[in-house]
Amino acid sequence: MVNRSDVHYFGAGPAPLPTAVLEKASQVLLNYKDKGIGLCEISHRSPEANEILADTKQALSTLLDIPDDYDILFLQSGGSGEFSATVYNLVSVWVEKKRAEIANEVGDNKDEVLKRLRKVVDEELKLDYLVTGSWSKKASEEAARLVGSKHVNVALDARKANDGKFGKIPPESEWNLTPRKNGGPAFVYFCDNETVDGVEFPAFPKSLEGEDAPLVCADMSSNFISRKVDVRKYAIIFGGAQKNIGNTGIAIVIIRKSLLPPQSQHASPELLRELNLPVGPIVLDYPTIAKNNSLYNTLPIFDVWVAGQVMAGLVNTYGIKRIGGQEEISNEKARLIYGALDKYPDVYRVVPDKSVRSRMNICFRVHGGDADKEKAFLAGAEKKGLLGLKGHRSVGGIRASNYNAVSLEGAKRLVAYLEEYATA
Amino acid sequence: MVNRSDVHYFGAGPAPLPTAVLEKASQVLLNYKDKGIGLCEISHRSPEANEILADTKQALSTLLDIPDDYDILFLQSGGSGEFSATVYNLVSVWVEKKRAEIANEVGDNKDEVLKRLRKVVDEELKLDYLVTGSWSKKASEEAARLVGSKHVNVALDARKANDGKFGKIPPESEWNLTPRKNGGPAFVYFCDNETVDGVEFPAFPKSLEGEDAPLVCADMSSNFISRKVDVRKYAIIFGGAQKNIGNTGIAIVIIRKSLLPPQSQHASPELLRELNLPVGPIVLDYPTIAKNNSLYNTLPIFDVWVAGQVMAGLVNTYGIKRIGGQEEISNEKARLIYGALDKYPDVYRVVPDKSVRSRMNICFRVHGGDADKEKAFLAGAEKKGLLGLKGHRSVGGIRASNYNAVSLEGAKRLVAYLEEYATA
Repeated sequence: MVNRSDVHYFGAGPAPLPTAVLEKASQVLLNYKDKGIGLCEISHRSPEANEILADTKQALSTLLDIPDDYDILFLQSGGSGEFSATVYNLVSVWVEKKRAEIANEVGDNKDEVLKRLRKVVDEELKLDYLVTGSWSKKASEEAARLVGSKHVNVALDARKANDGKFGKIPPESEWNLTPRKNGGPAFVYFCDNETVDGVEFPAFPKSLEGEDAPLVCADMSSNFISRKVDVRKYAIIFGGAQKNIGNTGIAIVIIRKSLLPPQSQHASPELLRELNLPVGPIVLDYPTIAKNNSLYNTLPIFDVWVAGQVMAGLVNTYGIKRIGGQEEISNEKARLIYGALDKYPDVYRVVPDKSVRSRMNICFRVHGGDADKEKAFLAGAEKKGLLGLKGHRSVGGIRASNYNAVSLEGAKRLVAYLEEYATA
Repeated sequence: MVNRSDVHYFGAGPAPLPTAVLEKASQVLLNYKDKGIGLCEISHRSPEANEILADTKQALSTLLDIPDDYDILFLQSGGSGEFSATVYNLVSVWVEKKRAEIANEVGDNKDEVLKRLRKVVDEELKLDYLVTGSWSKKASEEAARLVGSKHVNVALDARKANDGKFGKIPPESEWNLTPRKNGGPAFVYFCDNETVDGVEFPAFPKSLEGEDAPLVCADMSSNFISRKVDVRKYAIIFGGAQKNIGNTGIAIVIIRKSLLPPQSQHASPELLRELNLPVGPIVLDYPTIAKNNSLYNTLPIFDVWVAGQVMAGLVNTYGIKRIGGQEEISNEKARLIYGALDKYPDVYRVVPDKSVRSRMNICFRVHGGDADKEKAFLAGAEKKGLLGLKGHRSVGGIRASNYNAVSLEGAKRLVAYLEEYATA
């Protein structure tokens, strides 16, 4: 029998959750607010569910200092579903904007509008992807599947200058972004933290800033609420909940309201089909989800509640209104672990370049990646209750995921083991 | 303080769950199989998760007697996401079949194949929908949104012969199914039980049987595992889990393997776009989900586990290999409740026609739908711990949902209240 207190879990997602939240969860599953029914049973349209939704949005807004001109959506898509949703929705906004511009010029002649629009789509529709790891690669592949590869501009393939492997982010001067002069790309997409490869953007890219900056869409699944973010720089931030925020089951989308009606119209399904562009499922249609306060269809309220509790805990712990406290602790834990790895270069090798080391997913090899020695390293860790350290099956090696629910104590226990193993 | 034992919950979904399952869930949330981490935290690629998946599939196969030539998929789509997924996937299969036939005739000439295929799509692509209530209506609307209304044949609109309201299913001779002679429709869709309107198909439609029967796709969200089903008659059966099976968070798809590779190819995204047909997100692509044993992306294993526990409970309770026992108890509970309603025709009026009364969602009006009296009826019920009886907001009235986790005791308590209210 292993107790929770015996274990420190470094899994990459699903990730550990705060024990206090799980203890409360185990009660509300059976009986929520003394109503005689549990939280998985109450209606998603009940006052209780609405309160949970509102509280969770409030906590997230507080933590990330989300401005009023942004909306927060909850979807059942998973992060991977958002790879598609961002494409469907932002292409739709782009098409409708172009259509309106053309209609403004040529008037009511539908055939002429369509003819010109076809040409504009053919020549100008570009989705820019910064591919810095396995997840942004997957997202760019899904975009190509949906709209066709000719419309997807891989503005950066970080493997190219690094022996075919992820692990560096080349300087922005080497990126091949769609020029802004013709209106630029429909959007620029990046993954803020690459879970598999341990690569994190150290800061928001300078070349995505400025007055005519493109719409920026970022996947923050694996570093959500782990550092301050200037939300205004993004059109869309999304993340699956199961790493830093809560349970598998919901994804969270923070979206600029100007991309939703009434400020911004989306192209009709008919028009999209006419233009050989894809029509997404209604459950991924952001205007529909926003209009219905994420309750277009049944939302897993239990998962929203868990996320809300995790966030409320962060707000309480740091006694502040923003995420600074959590950022400090995340940085400190990462500093300790990388410090121990760097101390023994003959034993450990951190995979990504120092300039882009992820604070969340610390990827390293033991004795140059020797399979038997890495196996022994993992077995030794397990004996000490340090679990979930195996690297992603596609790259191997060791990965210590350092999400919000990993305690400073947990990080220190890992550091002690790293020291012990290296000096044994 | 209201305890679970004080309450009988008749909510339409999310629905009640067996207390024994929730009690076990509240333990495994904190620590699963003494591993020191909880069930929402373990990896979806761990041996434990694989075992849960296998056990849940096994229990479902046992209960519904699912043949070996069917696959079981779990998706995060919700039932509403399946409205779209069924269209994307079955249209894709239809298109590829037609393409292959044409290519067989005209050979390698791609332009000629495309030209002919365009014509075939234009003239022959028909999706047949039997609209018998709010959910099949929504599904048909989503199909029209995705492929264009000209390709959607509403073969039955049950409101037409019933004063514009759902509540009857006209005889099959009056349905307007796409004739089988030109290959028939791409599929025929129906909702086996309409949750909002209380209308359930009494049996599988005769006109969808026979040697050249079309592919049949059925939404069983609200009557899953509540009666025997001849799975072989269906191409696809799907259901959101949150009514008869488990938590909101997963949908279950039972699909004939002949619709998946290698037996059946799906059209390429390029071809679908060329034909002005929609390309769905990869998380709704059945071949991808099937190939990855539902683990293409992170699956909410906790929700799969809950469904598996509910199913295992049904298997154990009835001590039999099939669903007969649960069907008997469902029928008995419905018989008791409808019996009490029919006994007092001056007080209660069952909404749907007797021939299509749902055993799962028992919709009725009190005193002809008098708002004050229905309010008083609900308040009286609540005092007795009979909760969740309010009808769907779109139709009003009273709805007693009689899902698998509603006990015979609960049904009897409701019957007692119906008697008491009617004779007071």
